[in-house]
Amino acid sequence: MKYPNGIKKEFGSLKSYGNRGMNLEQDLNDSNTYYLENDIAVIHKKPTPITINKVDFKSRTDAVITEAHFKIPSTTDYNGIYKGKYIDFEAKETKSLTSFPLMNIHKHQIEHLKKISNHGGIGFIIVRFSRLNKNYILFIKDLLEFLENNKRASIPISYFEEKGYLLKDGLRPRLDYLKIIDEKGVMS
Amino acid sequence: MKYPNGIKKEFGSLKSYGNRGMNLEQDLNDSNTYYLENDIAVIHKKPTPITINKVDFKSRTDAVITEAHFKIPSTTDYNGIYKGKYIDFEAKETKSLTSFPLMNIHKHQIEHLKKISNHGGIGFIIVRFSRLNKNYILFIKDLLEFLENNKRASIPISYFEEKGYLLKDGLRPRLDYLKIIDEKGVMS
Repeated sequence: MKYPNGIKKEFGSLKSYGNRGMNLEQDLNDSNTYYLENDIAVIHKKPTPITINKVDFKSRTDAVITEAHFKIPSTTDYNGIYKGKYIDFEAKETKSLTSFPLMNIHKHQIEHLKKISNHGGIGFIIVRFSRLNKNYILFIKDLLEFLENNKRASIPISYFEEKGYLLKDGLRPRLDYLKIIDEKGVMS
Repeated sequence: MKYPNGIKKEFGSLKSYGNRGMNLEQDLNDSNTYYLENDIAVIHKKPTPITINKVDFKSRTDAVITEAHFKIPSTTDYNGIYKGKYIDFEAKETKSLTSFPLMNIHKHQIEHLKKISNHGGIGFIIVRFSRLNKNYILFIKDLLEFLENNKRASIPISYFEEKGYLLKDGLRPRLDYLKIIDEKGVMS
């Protein structure tokens, strides 16, 4: 009883969300632009990693890549600096209503975040359950704890509720993830 | 008299260098791999920024980019973390024997490095005078000082000698730029 109701309610808010037509990447880019313009932090999305095979040099200034392939990323998509701290994270969306499939994150990326944390940086993932209109931050230590204690191929949403932090939509910035970094005392 | 002699001498060492067949990017990637494998630092080169226009999805797993364009980078090529500090730099080679042409570095990149420094990170450029077989690190504060006090379109090598730090070739790592970060007391 409670569950279908919850879903229904979420679908209500999903509609208004859908109307905004923004995905997680756009929301994060918007937020990062806000942080940059207000001199709060310098955090950028990295370009998509590709291997370039053929380039057509039409002119001295205009080169067109005519063949390239996507590469498996060895790091995460976002990094930068906030209050002197190195920040590094990966962001993923899932349509699942119940869990986040781990196949969405490459092993190298988890290894990378672990290294970042070991070297004194702040590493985490941001997961959007798009059909629930909910975003969570999960710090790397909690992600690793899950992986060490579970053989599951996905992280149930209950784990995000328990160990992660809900990241509410806002206007400026759209996703104020640095606020959570501030509040949760990881800025030691 | 002194000048041509110097050049001649440098050309001598250029030859052995040329035999190695490595460019600055390869040397830095090698060095970063060394730092990573020895758990010294986590520093990566960012992928080349491109705009993807057309993708041919040959199969579920194989997508080929058939049209893409190079974008002007808004940040630098390299960033990461070392001893808890955010590190950010751009690396460029010049064939000039006398100066580094500033057109090699985009204005956004200099602005970016300035922001990094303001937020407590360590920002610099690495310039290789390839025909002289000399690499210099120039920290962003010294780069900015030059730009503020000069209308020149290039930075003379004498400025690198005076304000920068010579980065000698090594074997492992090939270019130990973090040693200079350690020694020059920027790790406050």
